[in-house]
Formats: sequence, C-alpha cells, structure tokens
Amino acid sequence: MAAPAPNPAAGPVLKLAEPLPLDSGRSLADVEVAYETYGTLNAERSNAILICHALTGDQHVASPHPITGKPGWWIRMVGPGLPIDTDRFFVICANVIGSCMGSSGPASAAEDGKAYAMRFPVITIRDMVRAQVALVDALGIETLHAVVGGSMGGMQVLSWAANFGERLNAALVIASTARHSAQNIAFHEVGRQAIMADPAWNGGDYYADDVGDPRKVGPESGLAVARMAAHITYLSEQGLTEKFGRRLQDRDAKTFGFDADFQVESYLRYQGLAFTDRFDANSYLYITRAMDYFDLAEEHGGKLADAFAGTKARFCLVSFDTDWLYPTSESRTIAHALNASGLPVSFVELSAPYGHDSFLLDVPELDQVVKGFLQ
Amino acid sequence: MAAPAPNPAAGPVLKLAEPLPLDSGRSLADVEVAYETYGTLNAERSNAILICHALTGDQHVASPHPITGKPGWWIRMVGPGLPIDTDRFFVICANVIGSCMGSSGPASAAEDGKAYAMRFPVITIRDMVRAQVALVDALGIETLHAVVGGSMGGMQVLSWAANFGERLNAALVIASTARHSAQNIAFHEVGRQAIMADPAWNGGDYYADDVGDPRKVGPESGLAVARMAAHITYLSEQGLTEKFGRRLQDRDAKTFGFDADFQVESYLRYQGLAFTDRFDANSYLYITRAMDYFDLAEEHGGKLADAFAGTKARFCLVSFDTDWLYPTSESRTIAHALNASGLPVSFVELSAPYGHDSFLLDVPELDQVVKGFLQ
Repeated sequence: MAAPAPNPAAGPVLKLAEPLPLDSGRSLADVEVAYETYGTLNAERSNAILICHALTGDQHVASPHPITGKPGWWIRMVGPGLPIDTDRFFVICANVIGSCMGSSGPASAAEDGKAYAMRFPVITIRDMVRAQVALVDALGIETLHAVVGGSMGGMQVLSWAANFGERLNAALVIASTARHSAQNIAFHEVGRQAIMADPAWNGGDYYADDVGDPRKVGPESGLAVARMAAHITYLSEQGLTEKFGRRLQDRDAKTFGFDADFQVESYLRYQGLAFTDRFDANSYLYITRAMDYFDLAEEHGGKLADAFAGTKARFCLVSFDTDWLYPTSESRTIAHALNASGLPVSFVELSAPYGHDSFLLDVPELDQVVKGFLQ
Repeated sequence: MAAPAPNPAAGPVLKLAEPLPLDSGRSLADVEVAYETYGTLNAERSNAILICHALTGDQHVASPHPITGKPGWWIRMVGPGLPIDTDRFFVICANVIGSCMGSSGPASAAEDGKAYAMRFPVITIRDMVRAQVALVDALGIETLHAVVGGSMGGMQVLSWAANFGERLNAALVIASTARHSAQNIAFHEVGRQAIMADPAWNGGDYYADDVGDPRKVGPESGLAVARMAAHITYLSEQGLTEKFGRRLQDRDAKTFGFDADFQVESYLRYQGLAFTDRFDANSYLYITRAMDYFDLAEEHGGKLADAFAGTKARFCLVSFDTDWLYPTSESRTIAHALNASGLPVSFVELSAPYGHDSFLLDVPELDQVVKGFLQ
C-alpha cells in the first residue's frame, strides 16, 4: 500500500473531531472536509446557501480550479449580482467525501499512514451529506437558507431534506433523480469496469510514493474510457449533432484508418484524457457507487413521500427536455411525492439543447428560476 | 506479426478469383466469403433472398453457431413456414468481410502467411456489399427477390439498392439508418478506445501461433468493456427497468463493495465476457469503423434521394418506438428520400419494449410485416 498524496485542497479544510458514522455500518475516522465559501455570513447566520457539487465537481464553484486553472464550474450562477448572489448570501460548497479535491477519499491517508485505496469504505449520498452537516455545524449555522445542487448535487439536496429536513428552508434540485435507474447503473458499471480492466489500476493500489499528486498516476487509460462513455450521457443526441454532426477533424476526407477522423471522436478523446489530469480513478469508483446506491424511497420504507415527512422546506425542481440521463419523468416523480407530502413545490421543465449538462451551461431561463426561488 | 487462425467457418466458403476493389482505393486479394444457405434455388433462380447481418452477427441465421452452439440468430424469422419461408425461398447469408466467422478479416492470412491484424484495409458498408455481390454472382443469381437486414444489415440493404439497384426487386430495412449520427460514432469510439487501451491489444498484433482460434486471445478486457457500452445502446431504458430495475443479484442487501450487487451489473458483465468467446477485437474495430463511415447521401452527391436513382425496387422500412440507437426519425428520413425518388415504400413504426434489439426478439407484428412484404 503506497503513501497517500498531499492534500490538494486550495482552501480551508475542516477536520472532524468525531468519526463519521456511515450507512454501511462502518465509521470513518479523521475525516477532512475541504470547502470554499463566498460572501459573508450575516449576524443572524440566516443567509447561508449550501451548494452541492456533481460527480466530478468540486468545491471551487466560483474560484479557479487549483489544478487546471480553469474558472469555477458555476461562475455564471454564483457571484455578486448573479442568481446566487454573493452580495446577499453566504455560499458554501464542500468537496464530497470519497472525492479527491481535499476531502477524505481513497487517496487520503488511512491510520497506517498509507493511502486507503480500496480500503476506503463504500459511502452513500447520505454519508456525503453527513459530512456537510458537520461542516455547517462547525460554521455555526443552524438553518440553511437553501441547499442547491444539480445532478448528484440534486441527490444530496434531496438527502438533506429527507434526513436533516429541519436544517434547511428551501431545496433546489436541478436535473436530478430520487433514485438511479437500471440504465444509470449500467453506464456507471461500464465506467468502473473500464477502470478496473486497466492493469495500471492494480487493485486500486497505484498511489506512488514519489508522485506528489494522486492524479496523473494509475489507470489513466481506463479512467479516460470511463469518462468518454459518461460524457456521451451528459450530452443530447441533438446537441452532439448540432455541435459536431459528421464533420471531420482538420482534414478534407476520411483517412480510412483509426485516427480521430470525426470531430466528435477528437472531442471525446480530449475529454477523456483531460479528465485524468484532475481526477482520481478510485474516487470515480466510489462516487459512482454512491450514486448507484441512491434510492431515497428505499431509505424511507419504500414510499418516496415518506422521505419528506421531517421537513417544512419549500422545493423547486428543474429538469431539461433533452436530458436523457435524468429525464423530466424523474423530477415529476419527486414532484408527485412532495405534493403527496403537502410541501410547497414548483416544478419546471426547461428547454435547452445541451442534454444533462444544461444545468452547467448558458440557459438564461435557469438563471431566472434560481434567482426567483432564492429570493 | 503472428500466424493467422484457421478459418472458423462451419459452412461453405467462396474464394474470389479477382481482388476486391475497396472504397479506400486499395483492393483486397484472395478474399474469402463464408456463407450459409437455406431452402432451394428454383429453376428460374428467382426466389433468392439475401439476409445481411448486424455488427456482431454472422451467416448462421437459422443454424447453430459453430462456437457457442446456440441456435441461429433469427430462427424465429427464417425457416419452413416462417415469415422468411425456406419452403418457398432460397435464403443466403454471408459473413461480412472484416468479420471473424470465415470471411476475410483482420484475423485472416495476408500474402505473407501471417495475420493481417491492423494491416487489413479499412472497409466500408459498400465494400461488404461488393463481396456479397460476388457471392450472388457465383451462385448464378442475377436478381434477388429481396435483400433483408436489421441494424448494420439494413445499411447493407440500402447500399445494395443504391449501388446495385438492378440486382434486387425488394429491400427490407429494419431498425436502421442511412448514416451514422454523431452519437452513434461517439459510442463506437468509446468501444474502440476501450479495446486499444487494453495492453493485450498490442497494436492489433495478438494472434498467437499456438492458439487455434482468433477469439479467446487478445484484449478480452477491452473488448468486454466495449461490448458492455454497446449493449446498453441496444436496450431501452424502459426495457432495462422492466427486466432488472434496481433488483439485487442473489443477495438480500447491498454489500457496500464493488461486486455486481445489481442484476443489471451482473448481466452486463456476463454479456461482455461471453462476447469475447466468439468475437475478434480487431474485427470489432474494423466493422464499427465501417458503420461510422456510412453516409449514403454523402456517397451520392449529398442528396439521399439521388442514391436511389438506379433502382426500381420496392421498399419496406421498419422502426421501433423504443429504439434510441436508430430512432424512427432515421427511418422517416429514408422514407422521405424514397418518396422523392418516386419509389414504392411502406414504412411502419412498431411498438416494442426492447429498444434496438427488438428486431431480433419476439415482436409478432414484425413477423407479420416481413411475411406480408416478401409475398
């Protein structure tokens, strides 16, 4: 078992004093939660909004990524005067546990000083939320103005409402689902198998002593393939056709070979390779597993409406018409459950050509919905 | 470069006397075309139906697979008294070139006696059809009663009509498309990258001297991942939910590990592994490439209707409502082009829960359509 990498968090890191209890029955000691904040907490401590990130996201919502140097992943949404207005709100985002941007994950040091690798416990969406609750406690915040998230972030929002429902006044769930479908699980399993099939995965034990970062080592080929497969599910057929169609990449004719003749091939290869620069393959295994395990109704006796018995939060659900990963029908199921619980819910399907990725992209109607809901 | 494997064809093999000209500008010498026939050619040689198989299919339409021992892939459709009635019709099916069931492909011997591997020329759907034309010539058949195929088989049917339009009276195109979309290409590229990322692929040179069959060697892990990803696209979300949902595999509770907890995971893993027993990874590369290159309009000056100027065949197009790989809109595009060409065409969208795979499965309405059209 190789040595863990130094903590790559660029911002503050909370060390939990107590072991974190997990859904598996195990507990995780010495948990670290890396996070970012934007704006100022008011004297009443009533203006905090927690943003929950997606599978490969991180806490750098509105500040540059420390590895890639790219702008934060939601700068169109979070900032002064923006829909999630940091002039008014104290915005928090924490790296989920299991990830690789500073919160405890498989690349972190276990008690023996070596990287957990596959000794890291399998976690759930609710476990991620438990770590966030500890962070919110540490920040001295009793009640969040809102919890907001898209995709896996939306699952966390639902889990907050279901398990810590008295701690939030509003829940904004974008392009998400209350449970992973068979097709969702199937695509994740392809990605996991691609990683595990790579000999460089080595049973998860690929963290080198002489490498200062858990990324850029390990099963890069397998992780790239996993990312390519997943990336297709984030885009719509329509979006791919509009963006690439059958256009060729820097050539006038097909080469009758196996180079990336088509732009869409070149794009996917780039997306796959670039991903390996910033993400840990074992984290990809653990986080996809957490998503596949997510079934909010199952956690609450099999009836989704029962999951929301402990909250008085108001809800907003947003879906996108071209999102085939978590289609509108998934949001509708949640809306029906909230209606059955007698909770206030607004639900809108927006039209955007970008598929699941729409929640991250230029969809002005989404800005309006978010701004209006958070008033 | 290792030695090629013995020819795995269980039936007759035609050796072409002349090199086969290819769309790439190259030509292929010593081409072999492995095929099966069912029924009897009548005295007028007017009752022949050519069936074209799909990506991973073969010539064993209605007879057992020589490796797996499983029944032919279309026994519900082809046989005495069945919709493609072998009491009336002489049914031919040839393994496509590029494949691995006896027709020339990357596992075949090149002139130096060693396997072609990646020295095999990149082929197109039209090249596959050229080899079939040579077979039909050799069988002494001037005009086919019909050419029939689903998925990639349907592409071959369209290519027959477009390029050898005077040689067929009827064309039956099931669950297919006149060109591969960006999303289609993207999924294939994931599969190719999974194969090429496997170190056992070894630049395509994995055919061992001491192994009697091109399968069960080479990049099995990569090929299995490729098959898993493709397999998801053959099924519908609805079908996956009905067949597997979130049911667990032989256990009462999640294991909080990375075994195949869910039935859908276990099923996909099995599909991936089983595929490596019967298919050559290099063939998978070449055939997916041929499909990605397919764009019938592009071959004919950019206008699909112009592709059909040389035929008087009548057409039947069938799509399935849950097929998201080649959705109904693709068949509609073909129907419009045929209408513009003034050709007789019937077009039906059938309802079936199985997604793209519907053309292979128990859909009684398809039987009726096929039977009626081939009268």
